Amino acid sequence: MNRFVTTLAITLLATPVLAADPLPSWNDGATKQSIVRFVSEVTREGSPDFVPVPERIATFDNDGTLWAEQPIYTQLFFLIDRVKAMAPQHPEWKTQEPFASVLKGDLHGVTAGGEAGVVALLTATHSGMTTDQFSRTVSDWIATAKHPKTGQPFTAMVYQPMLELLAYMRANGFKTYVVSGGGIDFMRPWTEQVYGIPPEQVVGTSGGLKYEMVGGRPALIKLPSLVLNDDKEGKPVGIQRHIGRRPIAAFGNSDGDLQMLQWTCSSAGLRLCVFVHHTDSKREWAYDRNSHIGALDKGFDEAKLRDWTVVDMEKDWNRVFPFQ
Amino acid sequence: MNRFVTTLAITLLATPVLAADPLPSWNDGATKQSIVRFVSEVTREGSPDFVPVPERIATFDNDGTLWAEQPIYTQLFFLIDRVKAMAPQHPEWKTQEPFASVLKGDLHGVTAGGEAGVVALLTATHSGMTTDQFSRTVSDWIATAKHPKTGQPFTAMVYQPMLELLAYMRANGFKTYVVSGGGIDFMRPWTEQVYGIPPEQVVGTSGGLKYEMVGGRPALIKLPSLVLNDDKEGKPVGIQRHIGRRPIAAFGNSDGDLQMLQWTCSSAGLRLCVFVHHTDSKREWAYDRNSHIGALDKGFDEAKLRDWTVVDMEKDWNRVFPFQ
Repeated sequence: MNRFVTTLAITLLATPVLAADPLPSWNDGATKQSIVRFVSEVTREGSPDFVPVPERIATFDNDGTLWAEQPIYTQLFFLIDRVKAMAPQHPEWKTQEPFASVLKGDLHGVTAGGEAGVVALLTATHSGMTTDQFSRTVSDWIATAKHPKTGQPFTAMVYQPMLELLAYMRANGFKTYVVSGGGIDFMRPWTEQVYGIPPEQVVGTSGGLKYEMVGGRPALIKLPSLVLNDDKEGKPVGIQRHIGRRPIAAFGNSDGDLQMLQWTCSSAGLRLCVFVHHTDSKREWAYDRNSHIGALDKGFDEAKLRDWTVVDMEKDWNRVFPFQ
Repeated sequence: MNRFVTTLAITLLATPVLAADPLPSWNDGATKQSIVRFVSEVTREGSPDFVPVPERIATFDNDGTLWAEQPIYTQLFFLIDRVKAMAPQHPEWKTQEPFASVLKGDLHGVTAGGEAGVVALLTATHSGMTTDQFSRTVSDWIATAKHPKTGQPFTAMVYQPMLELLAYMRANGFKTYVVSGGGIDFMRPWTEQVYGIPPEQVVGTSGGLKYEMVGGRPALIKLPSLVLNDDKEGKPVGIQRHIGRRPIAAFGNSDGDLQMLQWTCSSAGLRLCVFVHHTDSKREWAYDRNSHIGALDKGFDEAKLRDWTVVDMEKDWNRVFPFQ
């Protein structure tokens, strides 16, 4: 290869182009500025806050941070649909709680069973099959299920500004991870297509697995045991187990994300910690301290104390969902 | 940017160059051919066995596959040195087994304590500190400790042909992972520098972690509990947990790797499963079916049965260690 042309080629390809705004769904203001300033400072050669590419780890909560979590977590809709789909093979569920309440559509009856009821539902629907079978079940469901309020597929209930943010950070050398209290096996089948985040960059609540031969071929069977509860104190644990590096940027929306943000922003150097605050009752939902799901209370106080970035969805985002 | 020049640049940069042999330490022959043929077929556009880049996952055992494991695992040398370093703070160890035997250099006395003894040693040396503290301890040790036979740093006891193979596979779009029975926290501090494998691509035996405040700052404390025994049936489990995809190539050297190879090579499509067979008593060590460490017995039979690739270190490698 001609050396001059090679050099020219490399120079041209490496020359930054004055691109259009990579975050068009974010309104100008302090919130957007805090994000752009952080990314500029850690990526600019010669900056006192420069961070080498391999250490540019950014972690994102999923429910309420990347996609909607109201009126209930998407995985609960999946669980309910699974109980209904499996009911013909389980005639005893018609009278057996918490299954009977699920089949009658009585969510209060379900919650009356407390944690034991939830465990029974999770065990019935999320274990006892191979990882491949479960993955196919999730893929089939997510391709067809619709959100009860908007009628949109659940994968359309993602926040357009956060999709832009994921792409923007990756374009700046960040490795983006999902770190969610949701089930790891429930998320992995679709995160690559929806968020551009491959399965190996998804950290989530995880159950036990057993390697065994099924019909003469190796399989991994999903067990009901819990290996990681990837919520609250479990998030830094999950991050350490899966990534083995401390993030330099973390994004959440609830007290379940507080420890992940503490872990991220307490190390030395310029760090970015962001809470998405649900303030938009018209385009999405408005909730915080007293919400039955995704409560932001202690985290809200700590964000103020530590000067973390708080996204006001109503004011900071000119668009919420891609379909709007 | 001028469009013609951009197109020219991209074309030129994408043009493959007739490079020198990427595997110079591998002798020509069936073994090398089986590896090169596999990589060619899965990476060639239009090939019936083509695999897209994101699915090019290759997993490598560590002890005995990427570096030497004789006369004992490197991590055991580390453990022994830790007991000696910590002994002044533990005067009771002078008479308390298995510590007393370790301090006297009596390895038979150590093994006499069986599993309980090993657990006691691991608990004392591998838990009760923060992940950051442990990481620094490992980094300090690996920078100075020497192999008792060769006098080389342990990080020089790596196999030159395998370093070439790692680089060759990465150059062909593979994501390379360590999947080892060794401790994940023992490997992560040095795998990036030695193998070019970042911490997030290291899977290993893992203990519990606890998130707590230490001196007002968040820390992760290493617990003595076991979360993953990443050996035998545990390897496919660790792969699923950390990667969430099935590898298309796997490399091991002992029965501890057999299930990883089964899991890899039983899925549909062209797959590569390789055992490194230790046949070179002059340049390294020769051992297989009856070895006290890294025994290759059932795996050897299954490799023959399934026509997996078996590397004969003496015949297939013209160089073993980089320093030779």
